[in-house]
Amino acid sequence: MIIDCHGHFTTAPDAHENYWTELMESSGSLPSAPIISDDAIAEALTGNQLRVAAQRGIDLTLLSPKASAMGHHVPDGRIARAWSEAANDLVLRAADLFPEALAAVCQLPQYPGAEVGGLVDELTRCVEAGAVGVNINPDPSGGLWSSPAITDRYWYPLFEVMSELSIPGMIHVSGSCLENVHTLGAFYLHADTTVFMQMIMGDLFEEFPDLRIVIPHGGGAVPYHWGRFKGLAARLERPPIENLLENVYFDTAVYHQPGIDMLVEVVGLDNLLFSSEMLGAVRGADPKTGIDYDNTLHYLKSLLGESESLERVCAVNPRVVYPRLDA
Amino acid sequence: MIIDCHGHFTTAPDAHENYWTELMESSGSLPSAPIISDDAIAEALTGNQLRVAAQRGIDLTLLSPKASAMGHHVPDGRIARAWSEAANDLVLRAADLFPEALAAVCQLPQYPGAEVGGLVDELTRCVEAGAVGVNINPDPSGGLWSSPAITDRYWYPLFEVMSELSIPGMIHVSGSCLENVHTLGAFYLHADTTVFMQMIMGDLFEEFPDLRIVIPHGGGAVPYHWGRFKGLAARLERPPIENLLENVYFDTAVYHQPGIDMLVEVVGLDNLLFSSEMLGAVRGADPKTGIDYDNTLHYLKSLLGESESLERVCAVNPRVVYPRLDA
Repeated sequence: MIIDCHGHFTTAPDAHENYWTELMESSGSLPSAPIISDDAIAEALTGNQLRVAAQRGIDLTLLSPKASAMGHHVPDGRIARAWSEAANDLVLRAADLFPEALAAVCQLPQYPGAEVGGLVDELTRCVEAGAVGVNINPDPSGGLWSSPAITDRYWYPLFEVMSELSIPGMIHVSGSCLENVHTLGAFYLHADTTVFMQMIMGDLFEEFPDLRIVIPHGGGAVPYHWGRFKGLAARLERPPIENLLENVYFDTAVYHQPGIDMLVEVVGLDNLLFSSEMLGAVRGADPKTGIDYDNTLHYLKSLLGESESLERVCAVNPRVVYPRLDA
Repeated sequence: MIIDCHGHFTTAPDAHENYWTELMESSGSLPSAPIISDDAIAEALTGNQLRVAAQRGIDLTLLSPKASAMGHHVPDGRIARAWSEAANDLVLRAADLFPEALAAVCQLPQYPGAEVGGLVDELTRCVEAGAVGVNINPDPSGGLWSSPAITDRYWYPLFEVMSELSIPGMIHVSGSCLENVHTLGAFYLHADTTVFMQMIMGDLFEEFPDLRIVIPHGGGAVPYHWGRFKGLAARLERPPIENLLENVYFDTAVYHQPGIDMLVEVVGLDNLLFSSEMLGAVRGADPKTGIDYDNTLHYLKSLLGESESLERVCAVNPRVVYPRLDA
């Protein structure tokens, strides 16, 4: 059993993508979400995520809405809610259509200054409809970092419900609103790193010992700079960063062998979740090796073989972190 | 001969630190820079950077002003100039006092919206006084990324003079102005990564084939995510990222063995410059190994031994990238 913990519905039908434009252009009452058939959803997935997963031997993918299109930078609660509901309904329906191959992870109706109650409501709705995880955007402004740190009490009502419902949170920003900061090649990695540093500075898991947080994209810059973070924690008189590994997991969306090798060596098998972020930031294969850049299962197998270690990263840990997968 | 390409005068005499406060509190005409004796400068270094360098066997350190205190976020050209001159004079005098052990790298009087002519003037002044390199801040706003990308024509007059004078530029931001983005644990690494992505998107080195750019802190997240950047370049129809290695170098300020091992494997010896960023982000030793976190020479020696490879990273490449070291 191979479970990919980080997939996005980046290939949603045009009618869904167009709905965002309609929302942006609306004035007064909002347009309704488009009616999209089961067939259209199925077709959008079978030729893309499901095809690649089957090729690579991935049994189950945790599918969340397209991250760069979460639209959280628009400071309008009605739009945030309408868009999140539409995006979440798509991944929930996708999981219903392909229950063996897909499980849903929802986004939240975030925007800068959003009241957290609205986020809790949408999370609860989605979990009742089958979602097993949630993406949390630590910077809905798209680069200005104007929201409270992830360790701030602002988030506590959300973390309380997540703890109650056994729902882990993946840290994931949306598109960069800063012209010179590339969304896929800078902002995503920056957010992963920034939030880890916020967790070093805060006491989140003393408050929420059962909360589980996933840092995607191999933890941004964190495992590569593990010694830097260890030294910073010591200098700032914070607890050892290893303590965070009680609650924090890293995904394996790192797109070359040496990066995967280092990630496994530094973080250790118990805190890794197999992921490809597929279909995500990159497409195509390295011309030197012929291996698809995002075929992280290949890198893991090259390092670990068909072993108990591979099983731990690809099947055991995902079920520990996402216990609702077994429900 | 061991040359450390990334050191900061983080231990400058109090009178210098106080000068910043005086500048901030001034109205009307600016206060003059404080008079600091040679003895005070020498004392600030002999017990700190020079002591540690001697302990570790570092022969020569490229010393630049304290990066987090460059003060570039203050949008006042007079203050930027006064402060940069004072900070640069300190490192220039330090290099004059210890010509065998130190060489000066200057900062620029940057601020958001600064005209580039003032930057060129200060660079020229410092090079005439002995500086061998310059730190370039790609985001003087301290996190808002409001300045043109490093590949923008805005910077061209500076790059022209750097090319003429054989002066390489190290990309280095100053303090983060965003409360939730830690300067040392997030913003520095973010800037390194962001600028590499800007260089993927731009055509800087077609315009300036002789320009050399150094990305500090081991390249931020870049070597760890080398496959991601390769895949992004392909997806965005940009040239292979390996082309950038004609002009771009990474320092070795990565504070643990697995990170250094991966950096060397991915980037290769020819594009690495030995660096410790000392005294910098972290202090103290890993309690497990007893090795100082920032003793990057130890990690390099563990990997490479006392070899021609070590010589290349620690002595040969620095002289190639900083040709004025031999002047």
